[in-house]
Amino acid sequence: MKNFSCVFRIGFQDTDSTGRVYFPNYVRWFDMALIEFLRQNNIVFDQVGRLFMDGKTSNNSFVIGEYGCRIEKPSRYDELVEAFVESAEIRNKSVKVMFRLENTEHEVLAKGFITYVYIDTEQGRAEELPEIFRKIFKTLNNSSPKT
Amino acid sequence: MKNFSCVFRIGFQDTDSTGRVYFPNYVRWFDMALIEFLRQNNIVFDQVGRLFMDGKTSNNSFVIGEYGCRIEKPSRYDELVEAFVESAEIRNKSVKVMFRLENTEHEVLAKGFITYVYIDTEQGRAEELPEIFRKIFKTLNNSSPKT
Amino acid sequence: MKNFSCVFRIGFQDTDSTGRVYFPNYVRWFDMALIEFLRQNNIVFDQVGRLFMDGKTSNNSFVIGEYGCRIEKPSRYDELVEAFVESAEIRNKSVKVMFRLENTEHEVLAKGFITYVYIDTEQGRAEELPEIFRKIFKTLNNSSPKT
Amino acid sequence: MKNFSCVFRIGFQDTDSTGRVYFPNYVRWFDMALIEFLRQNNIVFDQVGRLFMDGKTSNNSFVIGEYGCRIEKPSRYDELVEAFVESAEIRNKSVKVMFRLENTEHEVLAKGFITYVYIDTEQGRAEELPEIFRKIFKTLNNSSPKT
Repeated sequence: MKNFSCVFRIGFQDTDSTGRVYFPNYVRWFDMALIEFLRQNNIVFDQVGRLFMDGKTSNNSFVIGEYGCRIEKPSRYDELVEAFVESAEIRNKSVKVMFRLENTEHEVLAKGFITYVYIDTEQGRAEELPEIFRKIFKTLNNSSPKT
Repeated sequence: MKNFSCVFRIGFQDTDSTGRVYFPNYVRWFDMALIEFLRQNNIVFDQVGRLFMDGKTSNNSFVIGEYGCRIEKPSRYDELVEAFVESAEIRNKSVKVMFRLENTEHEVLAKGFITYVYIDTEQGRAEELPEIFRKIFKTLNNSSPKT
Repeated sequence: MKNFSCVFRIGFQDTDSTGRVYFPNYVRWFDMALIEFLRQNNIVFDQVGRLFMDGKTSNNSFVIGEYGCRIEKPSRYDELVEAFVESAEIRNKSVKVMFRLENTEHEVLAKGFITYVYIDTEQGRAEELPEIFRKIFKTLNNSSPKT
Repeated sequence: MKNFSCVFRIGFQDTDSTGRVYFPNYVRWFDMALIEFLRQNNIVFDQVGRLFMDGKTSNNSFVIGEYGCRIEKPSRYDELVEAFVESAEIRNKSVKVMFRLENTEHEVLAKGFITYVYIDTEQGRAEELPEIFRKIFKTLNNSSPKT
């Protein structure tokens, strides 16, 4: 099984006057890939960010606690970028998800992570990550690296 | 009395790889100037966009119904842009506000408008623009053009 | 023949704290649809915005001179938006392209236009729109409205 | 001497439909603060990102190699955010700059870093950080924490 991925086309909105991708966009692509990975697992966010699954909206959400990115190679307008959801470090109340961006020649453009904290949106505090999410994120670690 | 204005510094986030300002940012600056004009008149938006005045949150908001922009001269990274709230066409349930952007040499960079519709956020429909807002927007038309 | 269109998924990056799409994004989607329409006609922009066609980069570009948008219905996170390139008004040195955004129920979300001015990037001035572009934009007007 | 800082007002453009600041904006504020810190030291970027100082444009630039952010407390529309340029870890060809964001009650909203690599823009490769920049970044470490 291969890593989950999505492809983005770099638009003018993603670039800046240096000719490169404006740097915060990398972590945006990471998060967009995670959203699609969850969608493939029948989990979506509702309009205020709560998790919607099994036909109903929960009071829970994933909020971003931390993120990081290392840019390996500049990217430019009109290039296609493939964002891979690479692996997950499952913790008690959060999950650290690792990402990798590649161009069409399979060169690594950037690597990084986002830590998603599982929260109760009413109480506004972190809660233990339920089994269903542990199972879903574990599937990421069973993927063979895309070689 | 002069037109109300605010000054923005063009950052990399506002530009694209053509070296110019990425075009939708012009109307963003228009709206940011309007928000500051309202603030100066003791009206702010709360965190979900409802109007807050006289120490309390109302159930009303201004939502954007229409906008337009004509770019007169390209703008580039690090330039200072002054956004003028120029005049207002007060209508029954909305107000069309005219804007002008200038560089530090007083050259016009862009001109345009945003139409703000006064709505009841609970019913989700347009309502008659109250006297207080008519008065505030009228002050714009008493300003002498900045010559 | 139907109107050319592309589909966008509304992400958190497109919304604001009012729960709606942040308004300048509509014209961004218009432009992104035009870029894909040109690509389908074998015309792309290079990394600094010059037109690339027939295997070579020209010294010409389309720059945005004017744009406008009327929002008909608010859009929200995760909705799919279809952006139609509807018709074109071909002028001497520019083309005014009309756009329409629809949701998956074929309700109109927004309508508007962008005027693209054909320029010589070295001289920095407008030039007559060549026959090749007139032909391409004319095809838009032969499309039957999507009914 | 206190840490260098700039203040930003959170606009609708910075938020998303969850009501919070859209997460990549934190590192954007970090970088905007660094740009102002350099400006105060008579160093600015030109329109394509090259360093401009002593009245002339160099062939050098700082490009972002890595960044990270830890969000401590959610921020919302209209809040004022103060971005502090906290300290610098000066390396051979790069500098890792630490940042801290605070609200008006001096609560920490986010902490993080950006690594700026000093490059020759023509050769496209990293170069040794000149003495002038070492001196400037060192001043950050002499600042007493703002307590």
